[in-house]
Amino acid sequence: MSKRVFGHIPNVYEGDIFESRIALSHSKVHRPNQAGISGSQKEGADSIVLSGGYEDDLDLGNIIIYTGHGGRDPNSKKQVAHQVLSDKNKALAINCQNQLPVRVIRGANHKSKHSPAFGYRYDGLYKVTDYWKKRGKSGFDVWLFRLEKLEVDRGSIFELNEDSPEYAKATRTAVIHQRINRDYQLTLKVKEVYDFHCQVCHTRIVTNAGFYAEAAHIKPLGVPHNGPDTLDNLLCLCPNHHIMFDYGGFTIEDDFKLVGLEGELYVKAEHRLNREFIRYHREHFTT
Amino acid sequence: MSKRVFGHIPNVYEGDIFESRIALSHSKVHRPNQAGISGSQKEGADSIVLSGGYEDDLDLGNIIIYTGHGGRDPNSKKQVAHQVLSDKNKALAINCQNQLPVRVIRGANHKSKHSPAFGYRYDGLYKVTDYWKKRGKSGFDVWLFRLEKLEVDRGSIFELNEDSPEYAKATRTAVIHQRINRDYQLTLKVKEVYDFHCQVCHTRIVTNAGFYAEAAHIKPLGVPHNGPDTLDNLLCLCPNHHIMFDYGGFTIEDDFKLVGLEGELYVKAEHRLNREFIRYHREHFTT
Repeated sequence: MSKRVFGHIPNVYEGDIFESRIALSHSKVHRPNQAGISGSQKEGADSIVLSGGYEDDLDLGNIIIYTGHGGRDPNSKKQVAHQVLSDKNKALAINCQNQLPVRVIRGANHKSKHSPAFGYRYDGLYKVTDYWKKRGKSGFDVWLFRLEKLEVDRGSIFELNEDSPEYAKATRTAVIHQRINRDYQLTLKVKEVYDFHCQVCHTRIVTNAGFYAEAAHIKPLGVPHNGPDTLDNLLCLCPNHHIMFDYGGFTIEDDFKLVGLEGELYVKAEHRLNREFIRYHREHFTT
Repeated sequence: MSKRVFGHIPNVYEGDIFESRIALSHSKVHRPNQAGISGSQKEGADSIVLSGGYEDDLDLGNIIIYTGHGGRDPNSKKQVAHQVLSDKNKALAINCQNQLPVRVIRGANHKSKHSPAFGYRYDGLYKVTDYWKKRGKSGFDVWLFRLEKLEVDRGSIFELNEDSPEYAKATRTAVIHQRINRDYQLTLKVKEVYDFHCQVCHTRIVTNAGFYAEAAHIKPLGVPHNGPDTLDNLLCLCPNHHIMFDYGGFTIEDDFKLVGLEGELYVKAEHRLNREFIRYHREHFTT
């Protein structure tokens, strides 16, 4: 199977209708032929299909409360067991923790005024803002996910000259989504190198969906810093040290000694850091 | 002086022109008659005026690199000393750390293709995404702030029925901005009660602009939880424990003992917590 793609699929636009699950799968908008959630508990979920089903679902259009997978009798479709936060459900939790977009497709048999009259409609990107468990109407636990419609990510295209051809293109095509996917792979990579331990304090944050860490750019991305999206410009930090690093609570010497905190940065041999970026941070982020 | 207002001023719209600083001050869009930054280092900055001036400024329209205050000779307007991260500059750093919007006004004497031909134009709300120091063209340190245009906060209005009169109103009036101001006062309050110490681990995060903590809702805001914006539904946490709390890494018993972590929640006598909200969190956010 080819690599999981987060964000829009090139040449597929919001509102496009597919006549069947097979057509939807061929388009790559939602690859599984039966499952409602496409994803893995390591990478997150790239797409979901809303199609009737769960009694605890709620569809307000721009906000969706989506019920997770599992615990239903395949024949009666009734909830007959508790759902757990694993597999495809955990995938959606990973989206929430890592701000990954998920493609939403509504099927005609989804019971909502926002459903299409026919087939399966691609309804664009949503973020997962929240997830929690509740005792469902059936008497069994279900996991729920709050989805919120994402607008075009103008943050990413602001930096292009508004008169340039790239600007017009970026507002509708896959340019920014290529960026999402590339960044996310790097982000995963630096966390894997340190197995989610903070390079400053060695803390590893535990959540109900596994370990949590943040990838921090040393020389920031974007105008006017224009730091690169590369592994030698990334650190694996806990949220506390990420905030402190971004707001000049500490900096790093060329020999990795910390300034403003005790100790030194833990750097694995396989993780080469570019000292030019460390110097940039030191010169610009302290008082 | 009346209370500082963050966000739009009622009945003032983007694009409105004011003929002088006095007219601008009377409108309450930018109250000081001379200063470029309106704000305090405790509360943050509510508005700024771009008007020529600083040699390190950059105005790309939706992105602005804004030079901080200080160090200039009042007669020659030349930079003759280092700027420091205090007073009005620190106010803008507080905006960055607390995601507070700042009103931006461009003056006709501001050297940019985005400036008005005449007077002072209200150009809407920006967020401060980043701040840093650099050796300016003058040879002295200046503090720079990256501002990014804020769109209408659709997140807040998503939850209104799209057919309702409130929806149309919320897209243009001050409804959502009243909410910003009310929320921010509460957020400040809970951090003050604990003097920025985390109620779980007592850590106090230090940045180059002072102490940092986060206000965490126990029962989340918004559909479908609809937790209230009240002090008895707020905790003062460090970022690490905020993430863990939101993603079910720990919960709290009625007697404030922690589950999933050692120890108990530190709660001051003056801070009454509503156990109904604690119970809600316990029931919905653990596996």
